[in-house]
Amino acid sequence: MRPSQRLSSQLRTVRITRNFTRYAEGSVLIEMGHTQVLCTASVEESLPGFLRGKGQGWVTAEYGMLPRSTHTRTAREAAKGKQSGRTQEIQRLIGRSLRAVTDLKALGERQITLDCDVLQADGGTRCASITGAWIALRAACAQLVAQGKLPENPIRDHVAAISVGIYKGVPVLDLDYPEDSDCDTDMNVVMTGDKGIVEIQGTAEGEPFTRTQMGQLIDLAEAGIDELVARQKAALVA
Amino acid sequence: MRPSQRLSSQLRTVRITRNFTRYAEGSVLIEMGHTQVLCTASVEESLPGFLRGKGQGWVTAEYGMLPRSTHTRTAREAAKGKQSGRTQEIQRLIGRSLRAVTDLKALGERQITLDCDVLQADGGTRCASITGAWIALRAACAQLVAQGKLPENPIRDHVAAISVGIYKGVPVLDLDYPEDSDCDTDMNVVMTGDKGIVEIQGTAEGEPFTRTQMGQLIDLAEAGIDELVARQKAALVA
Amino acid sequence: MRPSQRLSSQLRTVRITRNFTRYAEGSVLIEMGHTQVLCTASVEESLPGFLRGKGQGWVTAEYGMLPRSTHTRTAREAAKGKQSGRTQEIQRLIGRSLRAVTDLKALGERQITLDCDVLQADGGTRCASITGAWIALRAACAQLVAQGKLPENPIRDHVAAISVGIYKGVPVLDLDYPEDSDCDTDMNVVMTGDKGIVEIQGTAEGEPFTRTQMGQLIDLAEAGIDELVARQKAALVA
Amino acid sequence: MRPSQRLSSQLRTVRITRNFTRYAEGSVLIEMGHTQVLCTASVEESLPGFLRGKGQGWVTAEYGMLPRSTHTRTAREAAKGKQSGRTQEIQRLIGRSLRAVTDLKALGERQITLDCDVLQADGGTRCASITGAWIALRAACAQLVAQGKLPENPIRDHVAAISVGIYKGVPVLDLDYPEDSDCDTDMNVVMTGDKGIVEIQGTAEGEPFTRTQMGQLIDLAEAGIDELVARQKAALVA
Amino acid sequence: MRPSQRLSSQLRTVRITRNFTRYAEGSVLIEMGHTQVLCTASVEESLPGFLRGKGQGWVTAEYGMLPRSTHTRTAREAAKGKQSGRTQEIQRLIGRSLRAVTDLKALGERQITLDCDVLQADGGTRCASITGAWIALRAACAQLVAQGKLPENPIRDHVAAISVGIYKGVPVLDLDYPEDSDCDTDMNVVMTGDKGIVEIQGTAEGEPFTRTQMGQLIDLAEAGIDELVARQKAALVA
Amino acid sequence: MRPSQRLSSQLRTVRITRNFTRYAEGSVLIEMGHTQVLCTASVEESLPGFLRGKGQGWVTAEYGMLPRSTHTRTAREAAKGKQSGRTQEIQRLIGRSLRAVTDLKALGERQITLDCDVLQADGGTRCASITGAWIALRAACAQLVAQGKLPENPIRDHVAAISVGIYKGVPVLDLDYPEDSDCDTDMNVVMTGDKGIVEIQGTAEGEPFTRTQMGQLIDLAEAGIDELVARQKAALVA
Repeated sequence: MRPSQRLSSQLRTVRITRNFTRYAEGSVLIEMGHTQVLCTASVEESLPGFLRGKGQGWVTAEYGMLPRSTHTRTAREAAKGKQSGRTQEIQRLIGRSLRAVTDLKALGERQITLDCDVLQADGGTRCASITGAWIALRAACAQLVAQGKLPENPIRDHVAAISVGIYKGVPVLDLDYPEDSDCDTDMNVVMTGDKGIVEIQGTAEGEPFTRTQMGQLIDLAEAGIDELVARQKAALVA
Repeated sequence: MRPSQRLSSQLRTVRITRNFTRYAEGSVLIEMGHTQVLCTASVEESLPGFLRGKGQGWVTAEYGMLPRSTHTRTAREAAKGKQSGRTQEIQRLIGRSLRAVTDLKALGERQITLDCDVLQADGGTRCASITGAWIALRAACAQLVAQGKLPENPIRDHVAAISVGIYKGVPVLDLDYPEDSDCDTDMNVVMTGDKGIVEIQGTAEGEPFTRTQMGQLIDLAEAGIDELVARQKAALVA
Repeated sequence: MRPSQRLSSQLRTVRITRNFTRYAEGSVLIEMGHTQVLCTASVEESLPGFLRGKGQGWVTAEYGMLPRSTHTRTAREAAKGKQSGRTQEIQRLIGRSLRAVTDLKALGERQITLDCDVLQADGGTRCASITGAWIALRAACAQLVAQGKLPENPIRDHVAAISVGIYKGVPVLDLDYPEDSDCDTDMNVVMTGDKGIVEIQGTAEGEPFTRTQMGQLIDLAEAGIDELVARQKAALVA
Repeated sequence: MRPSQRLSSQLRTVRITRNFTRYAEGSVLIEMGHTQVLCTASVEESLPGFLRGKGQGWVTAEYGMLPRSTHTRTAREAAKGKQSGRTQEIQRLIGRSLRAVTDLKALGERQITLDCDVLQADGGTRCASITGAWIALRAACAQLVAQGKLPENPIRDHVAAISVGIYKGVPVLDLDYPEDSDCDTDMNVVMTGDKGIVEIQGTAEGEPFTRTQMGQLIDLAEAGIDELVARQKAALVA
Repeated sequence: MRPSQRLSSQLRTVRITRNFTRYAEGSVLIEMGHTQVLCTASVEESLPGFLRGKGQGWVTAEYGMLPRSTHTRTAREAAKGKQSGRTQEIQRLIGRSLRAVTDLKALGERQITLDCDVLQADGGTRCASITGAWIALRAACAQLVAQGKLPENPIRDHVAAISVGIYKGVPVLDLDYPEDSDCDTDMNVVMTGDKGIVEIQGTAEGEPFTRTQMGQLIDLAEAGIDELVARQKAALVA
Repeated sequence: MRPSQRLSSQLRTVRITRNFTRYAEGSVLIEMGHTQVLCTASVEESLPGFLRGKGQGWVTAEYGMLPRSTHTRTAREAAKGKQSGRTQEIQRLIGRSLRAVTDLKALGERQITLDCDVLQADGGTRCASITGAWIALRAACAQLVAQGKLPENPIRDHVAAISVGIYKGVPVLDLDYPEDSDCDTDMNVVMTGDKGIVEIQGTAEGEPFTRTQMGQLIDLAEAGIDELVARQKAALVA
């Protein structure tokens, strides 16, 4: 029995609010249960020096948590003067996941930065960031197309992410914080709309896991990604 | 004529949403027009070393802007590895303003940290932070009273803040970003519910200003503070 | 009764020594009682990148305290690896105050940096910095005129600064350290030779202050600024 | 055909040198082809503050590359003043992997730090670090047993790591640098002696990968881990 | 012929002003020609953690240059966020030199910090710092004796420092900036009142130097130290 | 009697391994007894901005210690986020020493960086670094000659370094760690193949030393340098 009473294959309630803020070229608030992440896409018509003149663009991401997004207050990274290893690991993952479905040559010599800022954290923030950032990125590129700056959208496919894990011996989908802090295995799966695997990161927090368990977890993840891609599609139409 | 068509003495639309997030002891989203600041109060039952054993508590504040809260993207302070002079100046101001109405002895040996994070910036973020943070702080203390940890609320009076300035020669209340970037004089006024001045910071961006102009600006500010204090009262009752 | 036996409207003894050091284009030691600040103006015939090509120059300031300028030793900021919020706040204030009386276009594409280093601190160091730095700046510009690099001095007016406050219930001028650490209200006023207000920063350390008190404080400040401007004139002639 | 002429399931030549340096409680040079990592285990009879008094010990890791371990010189992290995101990600991975097979309670209130310093880098440095660090850790614990400080070795099982990937469409084992920089999918697998999966991290550098491909990659990895565990056993006996 | 017309064995004019500032336990302005260094000694009745409980005190030093102490402006170390290698090297040298003549056990469990801040730099600032700091240190200890906190002064002997070098082929004493930037060999010699060598640091900027030249340089230095020690004695009596 | 049973004028066993690693243009492992330093020379066909266009090249050095090169673990500088004063002092010394024998004009507009990384530290690491780095530098330049990029080797002479000191009252050559931590005087001498002195740094750890003692120490050092230069020659031929 999960603390939230959900079925093992049940996602939390997903809410996607587009244009949550007004200045960014793409702006999405994604909620997975109590987890809330604000994802904005910022288009810059220039590139960092090491990327210039290569006939392609770049997509990158930054991630942060508001100090009181968490159950107890977390120290502000700007005040500490550095980003934690966890933060850097997550923002590198978000960037790689989005670039996997972006035709960087078709994007042209511009950079799009996805800022994923966690307003409230109840587990699964990196996955929510990827799923939400994709919508913001897709929307920002659609704007470039609408403005005549690009002939077609360089985002070739959906990308979404979900966590799965083994909680009290049972494989479950979309771990919330109480499950995440008490599970044996935690895995994040990033997949395209075509079910191609873009990233998979599994960690045995307690007991090592078997290949059989791993197969069950990916089955769960695939079903979850299906739902999330459907929600992405609906959000873009809305 | 103001870009927003407002009268010279007219505040922007004020919206106050309590419990915008769920984990903080106090959580308020304050909106002044398009400016949106999330203010959370976090109670810690301990004090930094230099304050221990003095028979009093402490109230402090931190301030940040999401990178794309602004019209064009601002670099993330956590990524740059330090807070700007402006950020530090603002968070020191917020802390001082709130301490001015707090009975630190009555608070007991605990610390309350107010995090003011700007989701969207259209001018006046430091003033909105003070006005909103006061509500979060008052609510957090009310919770301590309700839990029996304090006999009465140590917040002795309201405190609110508003900007005033001379825009195209005319004193106006509550500058938005287009006015702020094109005004001659910019002044932030922090007042208590009793109309006591807690902080006043005036800067001539272009021409120096006269004592007569200064009087007109404070008149405007006083009226604005009146409205804000009324809104704080309403928000606490709601 | 003030600890120093001064009248409420009495400045401390002001001493201004020009050319205290020999390499800077302008170099002034200003003393307000025991407070001593060395102000140097350094002219650079280039601008930081973000200011180039705009057909104007720039005036900026940096501030520091020698570790044992204070009653007990203060940690060296260079050793701590960062400037405090207070330091940044002060150097921003000095820079803004000086720019308020500088015709940046007339200055041409060069930068003048004012370094204000406190040799001894007995209160009022930021005000002494502004008053002294103005002389160093004016002198450095005069040298540019003498060298034929500028047709006329781009410093359009005097600027000077003084602190006022409410000490034991009485408004007083030019607070020294014992008064500053024990006052209810502390206000720094920056004015031009024409009595235009350039900056005003008032803080209620204890009780909020009223508009009447504020008027009394500015009256005191105006008289103090008058004297300081006279001293600046005398120093430039000398 | 692989650049190194190896079969797709063939490891590079593995060399393990124990006691490569003399002061550490465990010291191992591990070579996988041209990749060389020096792994040392340092035992400290104390714990960082946040871990004290919990009746358990801790195992942690740090990772670094010598500036000229790489084909062209990489800037020294100590000189840049911070560790890269990649470095932090790798050292977190090494620490988690080793803790997965350590009985922290049995270790007692002491900390063992594994330093993995890359002398030469030709791909697979994080995997070599894990495999080599395990030997250094096991040896350091054996010394604690020999000294009578522990009744038995708290390292419960082997742990080793290997990279696999899809190179020119073919799944291959143990990528060297030329393969790593030109492959479609790169996966690092960390397993115990019992074939339990401790960590799995797969990234599609180009095309997303399928579950079938993923199965083939893990088959390869399992065979590689078998060999590495055999080498670990031999090294401990020697 | 030296640019300053001095004889090869002639010191610059030495001026020593005691009590240049008023709060430090020892405060000395030392001038060697145009070089001016303010040396203050600060007594703290506590020790850094790693020195506590060893039944001895500590003497340490910090060094800094005001940004416009130099011919052209040098960036402020506090603003850059770190001390240069040169600064650290110099302050380590000052500290070691002073500790060489201090009976740390006799000092008791307290720390004395010598701050050497260069107001004007015309070569030889590290030597002037040592010579001046010794006076400040001796005076601060004399105050501890006068206050009854110490039975006798724990500074056992004088220590002073002077630079020597080979300028245009000729060994010269006490290099000023024009000589220092154009010499072949530069040597700093730190000696006690008894002519014991405490530190010697010689660097061939151009041609390597011979043992014969080295002997000539140390002869010169010895004579210079003699004069400086005499000046230290005079200053303490004054 | 020395702890190592060596004669007072006896070097430790010297071992020099060329091409210890394979990517650097020059790579040397130098061992002096248990002290082991890996010295690599990296050629870059460009210069830092401040050196460009001056018709000359540059030679610089960086130094580091692996955390467990020492008897007890030393914190990693990359993790602490800064290099210690000692590290900076040493790498500046290595760079100066090598430049003293390099014809920078003949080197052309390129930079060679010497990385000296200590794998094991038993005293004398800075001297071993200089002696070993010279070989790596000479070899890297020889490669440039062989590639036709330079007409002749711009390294004009040998440079080597050795420590000497007064241990239990007796002058001794090549101090190891037990001697170094218990000696009265410690001196590092850097000399060319022609016996020219390039750097001399002597420090009295306990009693000041006399000129007579200094002469004895340099005699010892000269003999040691003779042997080291012979070893450098042999290593280049091998």
